[in-house]
Amino acid sequence: MHLRGSMRINDSGHLEIGGCDTVELARRFGTPLYVFDELEIRRRCRSYKEALERYYPHGNIIYAGKAFLTQAMCRIIQDEGMYLDVVSGGELFTALSAGFPAERVFFHGNNKSQEEIAYGIKSGVHRFVVDNLHELEMLNEEATRNATTVDVLIRVAPGVEVDTHSYMRTGQMDSKFGFGIDDGRALEAIRAIRRSSHLRLRGLHAHIGSQIFELESYEMTTRLMVEFIDRLRTDNGVDIEELNMGGGLGIRYSADDTPSTIEAFVETVAGALKVECRSKDLPLPRLYFEPGRSIVGEAGTTLYTIGGSKEIPGVRKYIFVDGGMADNPRVALYQAEYEAMVANKALQAPSDLVTVAGKCCESGDILIWDINLPPCAPGDILAVFATGAYNYSMASNYNRLTRPAAVLVCDGEADLIVRRESFSDLVQHDCIPERLRLLASDCHGLSDTPLRI
Amino acid sequence: MHLRGSMRINDSGHLEIGGCDTVELARRFGTPLYVFDELEIRRRCRSYKEALERYYPHGNIIYAGKAFLTQAMCRIIQDEGMYLDVVSGGELFTALSAGFPAERVFFHGNNKSQEEIAYGIKSGVHRFVVDNLHELEMLNEEATRNATTVDVLIRVAPGVEVDTHSYMRTGQMDSKFGFGIDDGRALEAIRAIRRSSHLRLRGLHAHIGSQIFELESYEMTTRLMVEFIDRLRTDNGVDIEELNMGGGLGIRYSADDTPSTIEAFVETVAGALKVECRSKDLPLPRLYFEPGRSIVGEAGTTLYTIGGSKEIPGVRKYIFVDGGMADNPRVALYQAEYEAMVANKALQAPSDLVTVAGKCCESGDILIWDINLPPCAPGDILAVFATGAYNYSMASNYNRLTRPAAVLVCDGEADLIVRRESFSDLVQHDCIPERLRLLASDCHGLSDTPLRI
Repeated sequence: MHLRGSMRINDSGHLEIGGCDTVELARRFGTPLYVFDELEIRRRCRSYKEALERYYPHGNIIYAGKAFLTQAMCRIIQDEGMYLDVVSGGELFTALSAGFPAERVFFHGNNKSQEEIAYGIKSGVHRFVVDNLHELEMLNEEATRNATTVDVLIRVAPGVEVDTHSYMRTGQMDSKFGFGIDDGRALEAIRAIRRSSHLRLRGLHAHIGSQIFELESYEMTTRLMVEFIDRLRTDNGVDIEELNMGGGLGIRYSADDTPSTIEAFVETVAGALKVECRSKDLPLPRLYFEPGRSIVGEAGTTLYTIGGSKEIPGVRKYIFVDGGMADNPRVALYQAEYEAMVANKALQAPSDLVTVAGKCCESGDILIWDINLPPCAPGDILAVFATGAYNYSMASNYNRLTRPAAVLVCDGEADLIVRRESFSDLVQHDCIPERLRLLASDCHGLSDTPLRI
Repeated sequence: MHLRGSMRINDSGHLEIGGCDTVELARRFGTPLYVFDELEIRRRCRSYKEALERYYPHGNIIYAGKAFLTQAMCRIIQDEGMYLDVVSGGELFTALSAGFPAERVFFHGNNKSQEEIAYGIKSGVHRFVVDNLHELEMLNEEATRNATTVDVLIRVAPGVEVDTHSYMRTGQMDSKFGFGIDDGRALEAIRAIRRSSHLRLRGLHAHIGSQIFELESYEMTTRLMVEFIDRLRTDNGVDIEELNMGGGLGIRYSADDTPSTIEAFVETVAGALKVECRSKDLPLPRLYFEPGRSIVGEAGTTLYTIGGSKEIPGVRKYIFVDGGMADNPRVALYQAEYEAMVANKALQAPSDLVTVAGKCCESGDILIWDINLPPCAPGDILAVFATGAYNYSMASNYNRLTRPAAVLVCDGEADLIVRRESFSDLVQHDCIPERLRLLASDCHGLSDTPLRI
């Protein structure tokens, strides 16, 4: 079994993360439980920073908040001296409410609202990454109204198709994201910015997709971007000072995944950028990366309690856990594959082929198809690995399941960073119109049972 | 354009639902907004009840809460004299907190926890629908502890494969749901129940899947169930008094969908059940149906505000709305197809072929691929139809988008039934461990910006 980050098997034969016995964590905080390995998050942040320092000192690492964003996560990112990519007013609010400095925030999104743009400008975010002309108009209006100048990057669609799930492919021509280069839309946007006295073009942004293994796509994208930067300078007299290459580095979900190292990723892009700029005699732009999944994905583990099981003779054995697609929709959405371990039987041989199913009333609610585990019993704790990214952030209350708690573990300490939802939380936004209150008890002789909580 | 329920186009050329101008609703309540057509919900409840009355008076309709469950919805269901199917403690809590009588609740779920079972028994739910042997053991223990007798149905997997999305197929042999008939697992469960003095077998439950168009699958399932009931009587001396045939009737999402009427669905099952029982000289069991989607799906409409758009020459035109996969994950999950209308341009010719994309940072965040709409401008209101089921109930805070409000419209009145989430709601469960509070301002000389709300 591939142990990640600070994971080890302790003397009780239990999985330990950050010096905390996961069986103990499950008992103390309940399940399902997201466990985040603080050292592993920080180690990955530092890998990015050190690689950049080594291969291209003129740049910054921006954490892509959509992977996992809570106030505590913002503190870690701030503490590591990184920038933050937000994609909505809600993400910006989360960051600011944690004390994260607005001047380190990049504001993304393909359809920012007027309110979000106003919020971003008032807060003083570092850069707006502009996705379409309507946004540019609103930005210009709002900047004018605030008598300020807004620094923008233009998101371009470089026309690169990468080998990943279609939902995670964003760099191709037919994408909702960005301005095309070849069709002149990017240039049109740049001209609109230069006409405005309240917008300042700082650079370009390209993000070709997520969970990418082959680095060649990044090399190709870098080359296309530099060609475009060169054309802008030569043909249009536009200088591009900043190049944001997005994120997308793949991680190991299952044994089939063979991600590059963070260092190789940074080195590849930095190397290509230096070679291309040199060959065109261009000044080196400031280089940004925006990793999300590759920071937090493998640093997260979800603990579940195993409940019932079901053996269909000659067909399949299901074991059921107390969560599922509500806390991890990635299997249903992307056919994602996960590795897992029975946390309290970490030293036992994985002798049974089973399918791990969740408790949602839906056939698609499967967490792992076909995994070998030791014989399981109700009450065992299942640890599903690499669930740090796009799990809590995509979680729902489907079937009115309450969303799990999250804890941050480090050096034997475990701190709550997200409190578990309660049943009361589920109905906190519900309202019963007055006329329905009257009707229900009147019409059918059913007693108007008082609230039972 | 196929208008549903109480929809009409008013004199301003706007879409109206329940006598309310949807453009006005969008202005008053904001967007995205779920709009529920109360009369249409009630009409569909009554169609079920009347059809059952006509073809099989010995039965009940049970609303499948997982489709859409809020306190107000519980009131309507109660008001219509229906039963309720819950699949979790959270759904049960929602129902009870709205004053819904526990004695009208069916408790489903393939992996109920000990706590959920205890909660159901203490509340006095009408029936437990038992899915596996571990659950039976827990039920027996908990019933014994409470010195009570619990009425149960056994969920069986009838071995019927229906033509629908694999995530929505639940009746096949290889399913996480139910006890197999042919492999003897159902009989084993029945024997376990009969050995217990605290469990009382009331009947059988079968649910073959969702969004089903051809009624033949139901006929076949009915036949299989009656054969099993007959074998149980003949071979085992077990009388089955109740037969719960689940739900699954398809609805019209797009023009390609050709659902049966509620009446035809009920008539088919009722007819088959009568014929089969007569041929085997069996007493007619009480018959239950559990519709969810076919009650509330087409009664719901989501209103969005159109923002930017993006024309990729020769490829595709995207228009962006202020919601997406966070409020409607069904397109990404099931490749669902929806119909829509520009609510403020309801009389204009749909001349432009566009793709409607959401605002989430993800390529899979598309609501409708290729739909003809009138030329759209920012600020237009897009009404997406048939979003009443599995939209709010599956909604997430992905990208930290706040979940929309829901209103119930009827006779020109619009009442809030779910309040819109605020930014503060997004961080209400966040905690920052003390050591991270200290660190963040210390380490990098970044100012500890105070909360900005």
